[in-house]
Amino acid sequence: MIIDCHGHYTTAPSPLQAFRDAQLACLDDPGASPPRPPEISDDAIRESIESNQLRLLRERGADMTIFSPKASAMAHHLGDEATSKAWTHVCNDLIHRVVDLFPDHFAGVCQLPQSPGVPIKNSIEELDRCVSELGFVGCNLNPDPSGGHWTSMPLTDKYWYPLYEKMVELDIPAMIHVSGSCNANFHATGAHYINADTTAFMQFIQGDLFRDLPGLRFVIPHGGGAVPYHWGRYRGLAGMLKRPPLPKHVMRNVFFDTCVYHQPGIELLFKVIDIDNILFGSEMIGAVRGNDPETGFPYDDTKRYIDCLDLTENDRRKVYELNARRVYPRLDASLKARGK
Amino acid sequence: MIIDCHGHYTTAPSPLQAFRDAQLACLDDPGASPPRPPEISDDAIRESIESNQLRLLRERGADMTIFSPKASAMAHHLGDEATSKAWTHVCNDLIHRVVDLFPDHFAGVCQLPQSPGVPIKNSIEELDRCVSELGFVGCNLNPDPSGGHWTSMPLTDKYWYPLYEKMVELDIPAMIHVSGSCNANFHATGAHYINADTTAFMQFIQGDLFRDLPGLRFVIPHGGGAVPYHWGRYRGLAGMLKRPPLPKHVMRNVFFDTCVYHQPGIELLFKVIDIDNILFGSEMIGAVRGNDPETGFPYDDTKRYIDCLDLTENDRRKVYELNARRVYPRLDASLKARGK
Repeated sequence: MIIDCHGHYTTAPSPLQAFRDAQLACLDDPGASPPRPPEISDDAIRESIESNQLRLLRERGADMTIFSPKASAMAHHLGDEATSKAWTHVCNDLIHRVVDLFPDHFAGVCQLPQSPGVPIKNSIEELDRCVSELGFVGCNLNPDPSGGHWTSMPLTDKYWYPLYEKMVELDIPAMIHVSGSCNANFHATGAHYINADTTAFMQFIQGDLFRDLPGLRFVIPHGGGAVPYHWGRYRGLAGMLKRPPLPKHVMRNVFFDTCVYHQPGIELLFKVIDIDNILFGSEMIGAVRGNDPETGFPYDDTKRYIDCLDLTENDRRKVYELNARRVYPRLDASLKARGK
Repeated sequence: MIIDCHGHYTTAPSPLQAFRDAQLACLDDPGASPPRPPEISDDAIRESIESNQLRLLRERGADMTIFSPKASAMAHHLGDEATSKAWTHVCNDLIHRVVDLFPDHFAGVCQLPQSPGVPIKNSIEELDRCVSELGFVGCNLNPDPSGGHWTSMPLTDKYWYPLYEKMVELDIPAMIHVSGSCNANFHATGAHYINADTTAFMQFIQGDLFRDLPGLRFVIPHGGGAVPYHWGRYRGLAGMLKRPPLPKHVMRNVFFDTCVYHQPGIELLFKVIDIDNILFGSEMIGAVRGNDPETGFPYDDTKRYIDCLDLTENDRRKVYELNARRVYPRLDASLKARGK
């Protein structure tokens, strides 16, 4: 089977955004009562999935997507912790309904109710709810809840450890994924996303996080940001910083997806990164939509690029399925329970 | 001849740093008098260059370096505008002396006396001095003088236009180069540098800078940050933003160096970026020092990677010489005046 590790619910029915708009409007009008959770029918969810993500999964020949709320809409920088909690609850519940309606095609990953300056331990309750009660298999962790001002601590700081310890206990990975940018310097999907990926990886080189928490696992999306292209730089910097070689120091715990939207980029990724560290992902339907005029095919149909590589059947299975089952053991268990 | 477009004076004699230390100490002691410019002998400069950059130029088979002050030491975020001006003046004067002592091997590029929140037009006087009086051929422009807090305007904002207009008048390019980071999230050479390269490129996609100023030219260092690896993403985002195709919209004015420290990265760069947009550079002696244990050769000996490519003689000359002469016309004129 073919598992896409990186999809967001970017096509949610419009009441979700209406709820968010009403919620944000309340921030300017403290007298207003907070909106009630959006009313969305099963049919509306079915329609939004069947005509979009599920249609494309089938057309492109993949089987299922590890699915989370729209990343750019997490916007942890808007409002306060209560805003973030209410919004996160609604978004995660909607993912749960998608998974319930399409259990063979979607597995849930939650966003967290992060908020700038708020202890990360406050996100544990929602993580636990999503994993232990709703059956989610992972979470998205925003390394910059300020939305482009980078006011939080590096991911190796003790600040984050309470969440990490819960992740290890639950045996789930986090995808490191920023949200929208409120810094005019950073275009969200063209700069902020890629920068965050690169930044996180370098933080892991500098720190000793995985010595402290060997069971912790992260997926760095968008092909690892700039890292594979600058793999020599990172190997060299690790040496200069007297860190162990990267395979031991970082790559037992860090995985890259394949959200790289052209053939030469995918080729580089597979050339420099060990096959055990690469998970198929497309971020479909996401950041880059439309067809590449040079190929005639969608930019984000990353399976097409991978299928052009000269991989052994074993390596192909690792990238499409086995690595995802290993990094997301709760997904593996759920698939096995259904005989898959 | 072979021109390295990216070198910094990272090996300056110790009185330079002593001057800087004294200058910064004054910030905490307003009663103290500012230090006098450092006294550095010609012999000390010769020694610092001959045993380092010039030795390596010769060993690696290149001829000259476009040379600027140590980028990580610009630190525009320290002190105020007066601090930045005094430090910049001293650093640029030292580059001028290197060029005077080794005119066949070094061409000068200046740092600018930028300071957070200060109008960029205040940097014009020093730019003009360096180019018109000292014979420099370009400048380094810091897109984030706050040192990792990104409080300035995007490079496409009118804020920057006074400097750009002077650059066009002088017919010089700028290398976009941040300095050290005072944000704990960003390792300077492992995250901040690469992020800035990526960020600048995306800003150029969003804006219309080169329609306004068709004569403006930028070198984005470190192989263009993450851009070549994500070339499909950038082509796709340009389309989504209804911008013209990148060859017309950005790549008439933007050039990438070859500071990518492994063979597969260099191969990707040359596969996706037009040969006319690639300038040989190494940033030697700079961010990544030491030998790559996988090759036995220095990480930053980028000429070695390029020499492994199957380039025509004409393309080879473009990357090693002709593109640099075109992007830095004042260097070309100075070389021609000396019969080169």
